[in-house]
Amino acid sequence: MSSPKNIPLVVVGSIGLDTIATPRERRTDLLGGSASYAGVAAAFFTRVGLVGVVGSDFDAAHLALYRRCGCDLAGLQIRDGRTFRWSGVYEENMDNRRTLSTELNVFADFAPCLPPAYRRAPFLFLANIAPALQLHVLDQMRPPRFVMADTMDLWIETARPALQRVIRRVHLLTVNESEARHLTGQRSLLAAAHRLLGWGPRYVLIKKGEHGCSLFSRRGVFQLPAYPVPDVRDPTGAGDTFAGGFIGALAAGGRVHAAALRRAMLYGSVVASFGVEAFSLDRLRRLTRRAIGQRARVFHRMLRVD
Amino acid sequence: MSSPKNIPLVVVGSIGLDTIATPRERRTDLLGGSASYAGVAAAFFTRVGLVGVVGSDFDAAHLALYRRCGCDLAGLQIRDGRTFRWSGVYEENMDNRRTLSTELNVFADFAPCLPPAYRRAPFLFLANIAPALQLHVLDQMRPPRFVMADTMDLWIETARPALQRVIRRVHLLTVNESEARHLTGQRSLLAAAHRLLGWGPRYVLIKKGEHGCSLFSRRGVFQLPAYPVPDVRDPTGAGDTFAGGFIGALAAGGRVHAAALRRAMLYGSVVASFGVEAFSLDRLRRLTRRAIGQRARVFHRMLRVD
Repeated sequence: MSSPKNIPLVVVGSIGLDTIATPRERRTDLLGGSASYAGVAAAFFTRVGLVGVVGSDFDAAHLALYRRCGCDLAGLQIRDGRTFRWSGVYEENMDNRRTLSTELNVFADFAPCLPPAYRRAPFLFLANIAPALQLHVLDQMRPPRFVMADTMDLWIETARPALQRVIRRVHLLTVNESEARHLTGQRSLLAAAHRLLGWGPRYVLIKKGEHGCSLFSRRGVFQLPAYPVPDVRDPTGAGDTFAGGFIGALAAGGRVHAAALRRAMLYGSVVASFGVEAFSLDRLRRLTRRAIGQRARVFHRMLRVD
Repeated sequence: MSSPKNIPLVVVGSIGLDTIATPRERRTDLLGGSASYAGVAAAFFTRVGLVGVVGSDFDAAHLALYRRCGCDLAGLQIRDGRTFRWSGVYEENMDNRRTLSTELNVFADFAPCLPPAYRRAPFLFLANIAPALQLHVLDQMRPPRFVMADTMDLWIETARPALQRVIRRVHLLTVNESEARHLTGQRSLLAAAHRLLGWGPRYVLIKKGEHGCSLFSRRGVFQLPAYPVPDVRDPTGAGDTFAGGFIGALAAGGRVHAAALRRAMLYGSVVASFGVEAFSLDRLRRLTRRAIGQRARVFHRMLRVD
């Protein structure tokens, strides 16, 4: 695969095959992983360089899907062995989920290697993946204009020192509510966000699921409710989809300022609201930029005080 | 007490003395009750006729506080006996609370009786109180331009038929998330709200605590996050304060339309955000209309997408 000249946004994260049980359905070996959701969501807005690893069992149709959605795959490694697998089950209210099993497979010795064109990208999203790999990617880049990172409880528990090095080097850290509390030991979200800002990032973007998201900076906070979805079929990847839509919209504009960040949050929320309407990337693969724009206008009207 | 000619808003509900334990503090015999919080919150915006009952043990200083805040007391009964008392304890995260005891006292045989001037009021808030009493108040009024009602789990469990008669007769029903689910048996908030709209009200206003509030109508939904409060000292009465500020701001404007409803939600949230900064009405009694206006402007900037 030849590497393109111009990649505004690099997304690195996990690519996996998910087995998911909700109270109503069970589905096996679905395309998933933080890079899948975030990369495809971001690609609605800008060209994305997708960095990750899959095994030789990975369906070529998935690769075609990435490409059709606007992802460049020059940084995607296809290795001998099995693709990363994750299995989880949602409780009755769809709020809580339990991990049943994780198979690292080709992820066990993954070392991301960025194609030369990717190293000059102005925007970088370090989606949820081991902090050591996030650092390895950062080390290969000419310092990007804007770096955003996500993480998860597993790394807070098992790799806190590396995670703190990541946090010091990013412009925006995005985590969910419980991760923010877990990372900082602060119960109040406001206190947790300010503690995280003290560690280096200019922005902390906290994801609250059906309750929306909040963007904190030293200058204040912006709060956005979630777009209300009548029938959430599968919430897996909603946070990754939100983050991907957010960074994609931000990279498409090219400049980072208060209004751009707020608009990007709105677009991230809208893409995520589509994503949860079906399993895996089933809704996103059929989604159009036009449908995103329509729902964004409806959502915007839903939020206007006057 | 002489009844004034012009009462734009009547608020009926409970008045009580609360004993509250939070993880950090315990306070006894605090001024509380849905009518106290809602009436005082509403009175920042318009004149309020406060309807309720207290016992002969009720401190005259509390009556002076109501009056100083702008509440007319021609509909407040002072009866021989003890004032209603409630006692509750908050868990560590301040989200959940348990009722320890309830003493009805003078509330046991309360029959609200509206002064003549109140019967023509254009706005009526039936704050949380037994549905039979809410109906009794409604029956005394010339049909108001706008009636809003609140309720609680106790009445959903013990007085559902009367409560459903109330719901059929109001323009707006306000409940919290769990009450909406409890009332309708619907897990999805959107589904619960649409079920409630089907029972008669034009609007359903769902309170979500630290996650804000959502206003549902047949035409759509408006969502507002909560104003972030760094240090919540006592959440008791936050929902009543929100509802009071909301209906007060609405009654002050006099007209009910989408923009007025949204602005009223913003004002209700702001007054509630002050209320939780201290126990009882301690913060509200020192609050000024000017401070409300300032925080409302800050909050509005916090919400603007562009």
